[in-house]
Amino acid sequence: MTTREHCLALDAQDSLAHLRADFALPEGVIYLDGNSLGARPAAAQERARQVLAEEWGDGLVRSWNTAGWRALPERLGNKLAQLIGAAEDEVVVTDTTSINLFKVLVAALRVQANRDPSRKVIVSEASNFPTDLYMAEGLADMLQQGYSLRLVQSPEELPAAIGADTAVVMITHVNYKTGYLHDMAALTALAHECGALAIWDLAHSAGAVPVDLKGANADYAIGCTYKYLNGGPGSPAFVWVAPHLRDLVWQPLTGWWGHARQFGMETSYEPAPGIGRYLCGTQPITSLALVECGLDVFAKTDMQALRCKSLALTDLFINLVQQRCAKHPLTLVTPLEHAHRGSHVSFEHPEGYALIQALIERGVIGDYREPRIMRFGFTPLYTSFADVWDAAEILGEILDSGIWQQERFRVRHKVT
Amino acid sequence: MTTREHCLALDAQDSLAHLRADFALPEGVIYLDGNSLGARPAAAQERARQVLAEEWGDGLVRSWNTAGWRALPERLGNKLAQLIGAAEDEVVVTDTTSINLFKVLVAALRVQANRDPSRKVIVSEASNFPTDLYMAEGLADMLQQGYSLRLVQSPEELPAAIGADTAVVMITHVNYKTGYLHDMAALTALAHECGALAIWDLAHSAGAVPVDLKGANADYAIGCTYKYLNGGPGSPAFVWVAPHLRDLVWQPLTGWWGHARQFGMETSYEPAPGIGRYLCGTQPITSLALVECGLDVFAKTDMQALRCKSLALTDLFINLVQQRCAKHPLTLVTPLEHAHRGSHVSFEHPEGYALIQALIERGVIGDYREPRIMRFGFTPLYTSFADVWDAAEILGEILDSGIWQQERFRVRHKVT
Repeated sequence: MTTREHCLALDAQDSLAHLRADFALPEGVIYLDGNSLGARPAAAQERARQVLAEEWGDGLVRSWNTAGWRALPERLGNKLAQLIGAAEDEVVVTDTTSINLFKVLVAALRVQANRDPSRKVIVSEASNFPTDLYMAEGLADMLQQGYSLRLVQSPEELPAAIGADTAVVMITHVNYKTGYLHDMAALTALAHECGALAIWDLAHSAGAVPVDLKGANADYAIGCTYKYLNGGPGSPAFVWVAPHLRDLVWQPLTGWWGHARQFGMETSYEPAPGIGRYLCGTQPITSLALVECGLDVFAKTDMQALRCKSLALTDLFINLVQQRCAKHPLTLVTPLEHAHRGSHVSFEHPEGYALIQALIERGVIGDYREPRIMRFGFTPLYTSFADVWDAAEILGEILDSGIWQQERFRVRHKVT
Repeated sequence: MTTREHCLALDAQDSLAHLRADFALPEGVIYLDGNSLGARPAAAQERARQVLAEEWGDGLVRSWNTAGWRALPERLGNKLAQLIGAAEDEVVVTDTTSINLFKVLVAALRVQANRDPSRKVIVSEASNFPTDLYMAEGLADMLQQGYSLRLVQSPEELPAAIGADTAVVMITHVNYKTGYLHDMAALTALAHECGALAIWDLAHSAGAVPVDLKGANADYAIGCTYKYLNGGPGSPAFVWVAPHLRDLVWQPLTGWWGHARQFGMETSYEPAPGIGRYLCGTQPITSLALVECGLDVFAKTDMQALRCKSLALTDLFINLVQQRCAKHPLTLVTPLEHAHRGSHVSFEHPEGYALIQALIERGVIGDYREPRIMRFGFTPLYTSFADVWDAAEILGEILDSGIWQQERFRVRHKVT
């Protein structure tokens, strides 16, 4: 049985351990929810002060040029590109993941409409993150052109679901609920063989697992910066489009920032060449600027080193929980196979909600997702092996004690 | 002729003068561009520190509930509602102006499609803010249902342009270029008489002129918070929908935040009742939270008092410039009639671009808009009468000296 001392020894050998100092984590908390909201980089406070005092306060409107606000989507996109296998000038940070999904979904459907207008099906997983499904549903409803969603119940059903009627395969690379990691290259190849385009949502993989968009021959990708990338609460999302597809069509949210001549003040839209056409309206600069603090921590390491530690952390957590909590009705939802595991681990328990509340009271922050799923995110930049040991031990204590059965853990928040 | 001493006397009598202390304006600057980016409220720096340190840093993901992040769009919307003649629970602060325009445009077209599907025209002004026209153009292009834009060249042409084929009249209440203030009640009544719906963009009127959406019987309104509302660079925008129209149709950007059960994790979309359905994806919380600092300054006064001072400031500026710069080829673009004037003043000059650059070098910050327009915004919360006198005097000095003809003022920024 692994001991806490063994975990401390792993931490002592961990070449990434020093990066924890780059984050401002509160005392007494084991934070296993960086897959929902990443921790605050230590540098963010000073950067916020600078944006408010020097850029907004003193620079005022001049800062659009003098502080480089205008170039932020591209500049941050270039830093982010390195983490997802994209090249220079291929990514912009802007808007929300939902909005960016809408853009690429319409773009992909337009490309397909020009190639083979009979393709009307968007294939996805029923367990895909709901907002992705909602956005596709809302789009199909708006277009009234016969588009529909086909949802599979498990990754294994995908090959049979993709066919001659398929316009787009829209998949979240790491499933938010199960932690299942799809084989991006294989699934994209399958989509292409069937004449479909592949859209990848990297919300739970950018900064969490190595991603190679170009190596996988992907067509479109979107994702968020506030989870593993530690950009700040609700920080703007990103979008990438394969260069050979980028200039074929308009994306539909044709705001001024995506115009070929942003200050030409013309009455007609003409999209900028390149990824700039995926910009739309004026961006929330303070939140956008802080994304850089998170990205700059990644520049001190690389995704292979992070992946190595991530798998060691999730392996350890799975093993410890399965040993420590063996007599309780916990079911591992996340694949054991490394090739199919992201950087979070989900267990089902009939009273998962109450258990998560009891854990939070003890300082172990994971989260709950309907139905019955306890979700624990492991972020190699700031999660230690001792954290993992402590979290598993506290979960065991809570389960053994039955304290989670108390009423206060079972009352749902008003907004659920 | 008005003297600087007279202006100082006006400042001494100004019941709003003390509010300037609520803003952090740099020394040596006369800021006449609050219609592009509002000045920083003094309170914003501490609020940012709090969001980063306490809410993001210490609260982490718990702050969605404990720091009220989840309720921010509605809470800020309620504060903003009071400035635009809307009621409690009718406004949300979210996304960008462009995105919100897209939402209400699709919603309005859907309402009309259910009433009279033959209405396919969106009426607007050729001089409307370009992004509004671009968004409508992009939408019409996407829907492929025969929608088109009809653009008038002047406000006087609007009555003839609105007719039995008109689905929507989409107007920016105060024209960004000319400063022309439309009569919202009259134009809305005209639209309704013709069976059309009225969408109002309040970008240059929220916080600048009294707005009475409900009194004017308006149908939809959107606007931005980073101009006269001083929310911060690119801070999230707002959207209002008349209650009787709100629940008739979906807006098309159907993200999780607008779902009736946000954490139900369902596979199908069901819009929330009320204005909540106009939310979409996760919002940039830091930028969003700072909007409150700007709104809280407005709570110390009222729009009638602000309007009174705004007109006094713009009257003064027009008079001073017309006297001081009489021998130069300046043409007033903004209406002299108070009923049709917003809170900014535009003059045309053949070398407007170079003049604005020369003014900025002298510490007078206005902005330039194609073609030939010098734009000066007057923000009663922090603009003094002496500022106006000084700005007009400096403009006169620059014109007299011919310094603006120097090469350095004529070179355009790379991004224009």
